[in-house]
Amino acid sequence: MGEQLDLSLLLPITGFIALVVAAVSARLVLRESQGPPRMREISAAIHEGATAYLKRQYMTIWTFALVIAAILLFIPGWGWRGAVTFLAGAFSSTLAGFVGMHVAIRANSRTANAARGGVSKALKISFRGGLVMGMTAVGIGLLGVLFFYTWFGSPGLILPYGFGASAVALFARVGGGIYTKTADIGADLVGKLEAGIPEDDPRNPAVIADNVGDNVGDVAGMGADLFESYVASIIAAMIVGVTVQTTYGSAAVVFPLWVAAAGIGASILSIFFVRVKKGKDLSYALNSASIAAITITAIGSLFIAGYMFGFATGWPLFVPVLSGLVTGLVVGLSSDYFTNRIHRPARFIARSAQSGAAINMLTGFSVGLLSVVLPIVGISAAVIISFMMAGLYGICLAGVGMLSVTGVIVASDAYGPIVDNAGGIVEQSKMPSRVRKTTDSLDSVGNTTKAICKGFAIGSAALTAIALFAAYASPQMANIQTLNLLDSTVVAGFFLGGATVALFCALTILAVGRNAFRMVKEVRRQFREIPGLMEGKAKPDYKRCIDIATHGALKELIVPSASALVIPLAVGFILGKAALGGFLAGSIGVGLVLALLMANAGGAWDNAKKYVELGHFGGKGSKTHTAAVVGDTVGDPFKDTAGPSINILIKLMSWIALISAPLLLA
Amino acid sequence: MGEQLDLSLLLPITGFIALVVAAVSARLVLRESQGPPRMREISAAIHEGATAYLKRQYMTIWTFALVIAAILLFIPGWGWRGAVTFLAGAFSSTLAGFVGMHVAIRANSRTANAARGGVSKALKISFRGGLVMGMTAVGIGLLGVLFFYTWFGSPGLILPYGFGASAVALFARVGGGIYTKTADIGADLVGKLEAGIPEDDPRNPAVIADNVGDNVGDVAGMGADLFESYVASIIAAMIVGVTVQTTYGSAAVVFPLWVAAAGIGASILSIFFVRVKKGKDLSYALNSASIAAITITAIGSLFIAGYMFGFATGWPLFVPVLSGLVTGLVVGLSSDYFTNRIHRPARFIARSAQSGAAINMLTGFSVGLLSVVLPIVGISAAVIISFMMAGLYGICLAGVGMLSVTGVIVASDAYGPIVDNAGGIVEQSKMPSRVRKTTDSLDSVGNTTKAICKGFAIGSAALTAIALFAAYASPQMANIQTLNLLDSTVVAGFFLGGATVALFCALTILAVGRNAFRMVKEVRRQFREIPGLMEGKAKPDYKRCIDIATHGALKELIVPSASALVIPLAVGFILGKAALGGFLAGSIGVGLVLALLMANAGGAWDNAKKYVELGHFGGKGSKTHTAAVVGDTVGDPFKDTAGPSINILIKLMSWIALISAPLLLA
Repeated sequence: MGEQLDLSLLLPITGFIALVVAAVSARLVLRESQGPPRMREISAAIHEGATAYLKRQYMTIWTFALVIAAILLFIPGWGWRGAVTFLAGAFSSTLAGFVGMHVAIRANSRTANAARGGVSKALKISFRGGLVMGMTAVGIGLLGVLFFYTWFGSPGLILPYGFGASAVALFARVGGGIYTKTADIGADLVGKLEAGIPEDDPRNPAVIADNVGDNVGDVAGMGADLFESYVASIIAAMIVGVTVQTTYGSAAVVFPLWVAAAGIGASILSIFFVRVKKGKDLSYALNSASIAAITITAIGSLFIAGYMFGFATGWPLFVPVLSGLVTGLVVGLSSDYFTNRIHRPARFIARSAQSGAAINMLTGFSVGLLSVVLPIVGISAAVIISFMMAGLYGICLAGVGMLSVTGVIVASDAYGPIVDNAGGIVEQSKMPSRVRKTTDSLDSVGNTTKAICKGFAIGSAALTAIALFAAYASPQMANIQTLNLLDSTVVAGFFLGGATVALFCALTILAVGRNAFRMVKEVRRQFREIPGLMEGKAKPDYKRCIDIATHGALKELIVPSASALVIPLAVGFILGKAALGGFLAGSIGVGLVLALLMANAGGAWDNAKKYVELGHFGGKGSKTHTAAVVGDTVGDPFKDTAGPSINILIKLMSWIALISAPLLLA
Repeated sequence: MGEQLDLSLLLPITGFIALVVAAVSARLVLRESQGPPRMREISAAIHEGATAYLKRQYMTIWTFALVIAAILLFIPGWGWRGAVTFLAGAFSSTLAGFVGMHVAIRANSRTANAARGGVSKALKISFRGGLVMGMTAVGIGLLGVLFFYTWFGSPGLILPYGFGASAVALFARVGGGIYTKTADIGADLVGKLEAGIPEDDPRNPAVIADNVGDNVGDVAGMGADLFESYVASIIAAMIVGVTVQTTYGSAAVVFPLWVAAAGIGASILSIFFVRVKKGKDLSYALNSASIAAITITAIGSLFIAGYMFGFATGWPLFVPVLSGLVTGLVVGLSSDYFTNRIHRPARFIARSAQSGAAINMLTGFSVGLLSVVLPIVGISAAVIISFMMAGLYGICLAGVGMLSVTGVIVASDAYGPIVDNAGGIVEQSKMPSRVRKTTDSLDSVGNTTKAICKGFAIGSAALTAIALFAAYASPQMANIQTLNLLDSTVVAGFFLGGATVALFCALTILAVGRNAFRMVKEVRRQFREIPGLMEGKAKPDYKRCIDIATHGALKELIVPSASALVIPLAVGFILGKAALGGFLAGSIGVGLVLALLMANAGGAWDNAKKYVELGHFGGKGSKTHTAAVVGDTVGDPFKDTAGPSINILIKLMSWIALISAPLLLA
């Protein structure tokens, strides 16, 4: 058994197929009509703003990346190979994000236009738009890892590839998160609350920045996040795979790649399940794709494990993959339950908003805390089961399993901002309300998929971080056999890890606050100083708002990002490698709780507000609504800035530990 | 070397002296005049309400306690001795809480009356009132531990004493916390916001319940919390002391008792530092007492360590004690910095409230997250230094050191509700505004001491929990040499520990919400249905409000308390003793972050509101004030219910682990 030369060609082929699917999807999207001039115009403005932001963001990222690469050059054990691999990882993530977002932005006006003809075609275009991001990410990810593994021959040497992806992800997530919420809060607080104009109204100076924000935050940011988890889980499993070769043979090293390939194949097959069925809820179309992908991957992995290791040895390696897949589903569905307005928690929050903003805050916060339990039970079960089956290697495989379906998950996530933007374009181009209704129904599905994906991203980040943690401890790296929680430096590191997550959250939330304040001032100024703006006779200065969001986001991401890079190094070099291990554990433990709390509380407040807006408990304009809006505003940086940034933080700090392991031993 | 019979009599003598000081303080308070009839009347109403609540609470507690005692009877290794010691611990805590609270309630009207003659005497009465609680707690605590140690001869057998205290503390903290916030929110939301009457106005039906709440929550609840930490830290250090007898001799077992005795002596001496100095801030009086107590304890401990072990062996045991004392100070001062309105964070929050409730929420939440960092760095440093000096025994000694000054800390904490109540009594008895100004100045000091004490309680709970954790792992208990974070059950337990803290917080906050809702309904009903209430012609039905708070609090504490008891047992019996160790670590890590976040965010919102009420950013009645009030209302259950309850939770779960250790091994 073991891999055979001919068959192993299937791996790069699968990667290429993913890219081909992405290309075909992109073509299918682009050939659709962009709609009437007004739609094109708005879409172009969004495009312009997003490109301008991404360009600057990439410049910031690459300045940092070159510095880190230069440092790697001088670190014994890494040298030029480390620097090159790191830059390649950073470049891969940049590329995937760039391609994915550009198609997503082009898909929005086309979706808006198609919505004039009904829901079915609009759904297809928007899903395909998201698919480009999903397939590009997994295609590039698989090929990238494969390329460096083939070149260097040792999984340990691919590490900087994941580190590069992680560094980009940090900036993309934190910067994108700050951008999107700056614009969102600015548009909502002044436009909706003070000026009393509807959401997505073209008179709102921050409206284009808001639409741009959806793309740079939810498409590019989320894509970079999951791209990184994807390659990280594979690399970690390969590294730990090296240590179990005596048991499983060399196939243990490449098995993770095969599971990933199975996941890509399954994701492609699952596309055919995206179909609007009469009488079924729209979300059924997207969810059935995810479930199909999970099922097919599971079956595929069972066969692969059987073929590579023989059934008797193989099935205990299949079980972790399955547990990862199932856990991903559980975490995602739990997020959906706690945030979707069709379920009890969001409605409960909406009802509590009748007693005012404070009770709304408390109820949402409690729901967020409750939502922590089920995912953690799921992850804990996956950890135990996987470990029973195959030790630390099993835990890594659970991560690979969960992330193998990244393609379809990212696709249905990126779908969200596309239809959200489409709705905005419909509103701004003054289409009939029937069209807006169509995009609204698509958007409400987008909220579900976004919630599921957010849960998935957190769960997978946790599993990935655990896998990286296992890789850190492995004999090739820090070589820690036991990480003793009864050792004082481990305990101290453990506490400091938790404190670092808290610090990072505080810094990102404060950054949003500061930047939103600048935006609010500018939007107010425009309403005040531009004559005829409220009457719709003059156009607002969209560009100024975009500039403020851009500048602010890039300025504000520096301190949190720098602390994420520096603190783990300080802990490692001052307190030692065991303390750094404890530090990682503490950051994962506290990070998982805070990430789930923030993402789900934020989502629940958002949907509670939407539920009120549907006419419940007094509907729009009521006191209940005002209270619900406060919850939504607090939830915004929770769910779209701080919460998702924690995912990256806990992974990035693990990478730093891994990269500095050779130095810590010296 | 070693303890000598004659000298060892000093230990019980110190305990008795503490009780004598308590008795004398009580007499000095009680001989003061209660003031005019109106003051007596209100004080009597508070007294009646508090007694009614405590009576019912103790009935609930004792029902539970008898059940647990019955269970202990049948557990091999515990039997009748376990049951008796457990009940004794529960009784000790009950007694200390009962005595302390009764004097505190009697001190309030006397302080109010003395305030008519100026600040100096009022300060003395109120501090003495608090001192009764502080000295009773440490006196009973030291004597209780000493008694059972003398009887049984083995520290391991005293465990149930601490467990009993912990069980009482859980109910007192959670129940008291729910009670106090139910009443507070009910009084504020309807009275202040809806009816527009001032704080502590006698027309408010919930005003007496609110005053009662301060006592049952902040005096009895906090007292039970620190009583438990106090005895827990001593017992844990004695247990671990047994394991290091080969190094230090049998003196290691009793050294913690001596440090505690030194702390009591120092606390008593520090009383003489409580003196109002011209030109100095009032808080100077109370803080200088704490600092004096810390300094004297440190010097005393150095001599004791030198005498018992000789200087060369003794000083490495003194250093942990010192590090604990210093860390307590650091954590307390950090809490003060982040919450006191004279410092930047609270003012920053107040300024942000100008942008509305949502930004106020976000800023306060971020400040809470930031406030986590310094205390955790302090605790981590203490853990490392203590461990370097004397291993796990050192860590336990740090806990003992920090808690040795519990007497004076509790005294200056219990001072807070006394002067708060005094202010209420002054308001309700319609004294001249000069008198109210005096009580207000005392109250603002109370806010500082409360903040410091809250930080101290959290820090000491964390150190105590670590000490209990060390005791759990020790050879006499679960006998865990290494608790490996690379073992899957430890990792799973670790995650589940964090999730349990989140669950517990959610349950307590939701409980407050539900109960406050009942209270709000009742207060509204009274305003609506009692003719002449608003005009001051008719009296409200205070009793109904007290009844609602009482019933609700006792009903609502059941589910969170039961889960705190059951979940760790389930983890231990299903996943094993190592998983339970990981569980404890996870609960401490996440618990410490959440407890500091909630306590300090809550305190900061409270003080930001007060800062606005002083006339800043528009002052009372402005939009900024409305936003600040929302923050304060959210902060209430954060800082007075969920946050402090976490202290108890992490300790109680450690006790359960310790108590069930013999069963887990079987």
